[in-house]
Amino acid sequence: MDSFILHGAVLFSEDVRELKEYDDAYVVCADGVCQGVYEEIPGEFSDLPVEDFWDKLIIPGLADLHTHAPQYTFRGLYGDMELLEWLDRVTFPEEMRYDDMDYAARAYDLFVEDLFTGATTRAAIFATKHTDATLLLMDMLEETGLVTLVGKVNMDRGVPHGYCETTGESVSETLRWLEEVRSRGYRNTSPILTPRFTPTCTDELMKQLGDLSGRYGLPVQSHLSENLDEISLVSRLCPDTRFYGESYDRFGLFGTQGKTIMAHCVWSGEEEIELMLKNGVYIAHCAQSNMRIRSGAAPVSLYLDKGMHVGLGSDTAGGAELSIFSAMRDAVLSSNLRWRLYDRDVRQISFPEAFYMATLGGGAFFGKTGTFKKGYEFDAVVLDDDNIQTLYPASPAERAERLMYLADDRHVVGKYVRGCKLY
Amino acid sequence: MDSFILHGAVLFSEDVRELKEYDDAYVVCADGVCQGVYEEIPGEFSDLPVEDFWDKLIIPGLADLHTHAPQYTFRGLYGDMELLEWLDRVTFPEEMRYDDMDYAARAYDLFVEDLFTGATTRAAIFATKHTDATLLLMDMLEETGLVTLVGKVNMDRGVPHGYCETTGESVSETLRWLEEVRSRGYRNTSPILTPRFTPTCTDELMKQLGDLSGRYGLPVQSHLSENLDEISLVSRLCPDTRFYGESYDRFGLFGTQGKTIMAHCVWSGEEEIELMLKNGVYIAHCAQSNMRIRSGAAPVSLYLDKGMHVGLGSDTAGGAELSIFSAMRDAVLSSNLRWRLYDRDVRQISFPEAFYMATLGGGAFFGKTGTFKKGYEFDAVVLDDDNIQTLYPASPAERAERLMYLADDRHVVGKYVRGCKLY
Repeated sequence: MDSFILHGAVLFSEDVRELKEYDDAYVVCADGVCQGVYEEIPGEFSDLPVEDFWDKLIIPGLADLHTHAPQYTFRGLYGDMELLEWLDRVTFPEEMRYDDMDYAARAYDLFVEDLFTGATTRAAIFATKHTDATLLLMDMLEETGLVTLVGKVNMDRGVPHGYCETTGESVSETLRWLEEVRSRGYRNTSPILTPRFTPTCTDELMKQLGDLSGRYGLPVQSHLSENLDEISLVSRLCPDTRFYGESYDRFGLFGTQGKTIMAHCVWSGEEEIELMLKNGVYIAHCAQSNMRIRSGAAPVSLYLDKGMHVGLGSDTAGGAELSIFSAMRDAVLSSNLRWRLYDRDVRQISFPEAFYMATLGGGAFFGKTGTFKKGYEFDAVVLDDDNIQTLYPASPAERAERLMYLADDRHVVGKYVRGCKLY
Repeated sequence: MDSFILHGAVLFSEDVRELKEYDDAYVVCADGVCQGVYEEIPGEFSDLPVEDFWDKLIIPGLADLHTHAPQYTFRGLYGDMELLEWLDRVTFPEEMRYDDMDYAARAYDLFVEDLFTGATTRAAIFATKHTDATLLLMDMLEETGLVTLVGKVNMDRGVPHGYCETTGESVSETLRWLEEVRSRGYRNTSPILTPRFTPTCTDELMKQLGDLSGRYGLPVQSHLSENLDEISLVSRLCPDTRFYGESYDRFGLFGTQGKTIMAHCVWSGEEEIELMLKNGVYIAHCAQSNMRIRSGAAPVSLYLDKGMHVGLGSDTAGGAELSIFSAMRDAVLSSNLRWRLYDRDVRQISFPEAFYMATLGGGAFFGKTGTFKKGYEFDAVVLDDDNIQTLYPASPAERAERLMYLADDRHVVGKYVRGCKLY
């Protein structure tokens, strides 16, 4: 961990609605912790080295609250189906290949490289059912310096032969995985329990995973109320639940034991929303995936207005793009269309809200991170937007809003995680 | 004009639904005209030079049926308003600056440069009311080798003082502009009559522009049924019309005299649709703009199924991106959301349909262009997608579908227009 000062244009979220911006300021990091943003370097930090980025834009690192690493190989393809058909025809067959460690090594290398070169500093990631390939992915992520939560996927029903686990296998492999993770002593890479979703997890498996979460205080990630056919399927599979979220909650997998991310929440009803609010469940909003595989558009402003935790997810390869700038763009665009075509009572997402979700909103799942306020872990990316030329000066917030549409990996010229410079 | 053969992977539209793809083929150009695609070079062309692009992807050039060059300076910004407010607060004030030829030169240079480096080979472009700045834009476009239609914008009401014209000025400046264009003898750059939209054009101006279109056979571009408040305004301004399209049609500005592009058509009703079909009006579908400034989503598959002419528009700066790959992506994504949330009777757009609109659908406005069938003018772009790595071979159509999400200017490594190599 380092102590240093970055100098440039600075933008960060004060809260869900308010951005703080500086044309010319100093972001101070001491022992990996942010000490705030200043227009002049305070005397107490005058000995720290200054890295000068001139007029480049410095923002907190972006958080990806939901992505599937093994699906990255087919990003951008198969956008003409809905969820359940897409899982059966495309996703499960591809994920089965990760039984082959050589394939896994080559495939995960592509994912990890692109995650590293983009603006994301923290991510919650689904792997596959394969313990060894999941450990390999974690080894590779650990090497990058990014902070990630990675899940070996659990599923003991509703999956093709050859990719399904028995309940016993699923639990014993999870224990072996957790034990092995512990022994590897990762610094930035942690396990997150990952029951894939209710249609692929029996009650017994859910129960045992709930016990594990309680015993070890493990966080949880899964999917919730993404697609209408999926929701019907869950109500048939769990006739004793009133709504989808209960199928997790009754086993302690819905924020009551470990911190929990539920991806999508496109069609959550009132009771489900209230339970997420009460339990502090994090919502991973994955707008591009929700448009691409025809799920719908989540009522995100409603979630934000209730004070719920909401971050953004790329959801590759339901989504095609790993970029959280693109996830911001699609959050804004799909909220506009939802408001116009479906429900005028749920307002659109503003750019400051999209930026908040991409940084502080999602970052909060990883602890005190996602903004440049004093006391937060120091994650930052430096953006060079010189190739986006205009004729008048844009404020830091305007530059970031433009990057929401126009950013690619070339724009990311510096990256810091927990006070360590990655590049 | 050149005669040559391009060798690589090839993709083009046979018709609105069918793509033709070749992993390894030869596209033959003789005197600027496509002679077809062959797996082996036919004997009659054996003397032509072959440019070898190996496994790079060769597709027809993309057509942008609707974009505003002077708005390019604020692309990606001001996405939090609807059309009429956005025009008053952002667009008109920016367009007024093009009275200054120095500003116009610097601003148009940015637009022209980015149009040149992207995958677009043909475009229909709105300038501003300023004749001289419009001529400057046309000079700059002519130098690129791209084929463009450019319009000096007409407006004699509903525009802020200082940007509005009198009816007489608008007509006399249009005549001066047309005369000057004729005298400059452009090869690839043509004028297109551009009554901005009904709210800014009196009946008298429309009448005189209609006369001009008839007299010189000039094509026309304008806006139609984009935004609900705009449509209400038109019905108040033109109480003797049954629908918005009539406000153009009654003056011969709706496909009956010159070929006509109407941008948006988000909210066109049955009668308007039937009239567009009957008159052969081209629809410029601008999905990102329609999402961004909250207009809605056009029923594009309905238009295609009726056999109407539909192309894509970037609509910068209602849209933030000049890329027609992005326009394809947003056409697909917004059609999915429209289907899911608003009208299950209007199906989603497929990738082949998006590709068709971006090439042959929009290209048809410029004549016989937009595909590699024999007899079409030869426009092509060569795409290097090596940086999009996966582990198994993708077909040409799959590669293009992936580029719809992931393309940027780096991917465009070769560009040919009317048989001339631009780079």
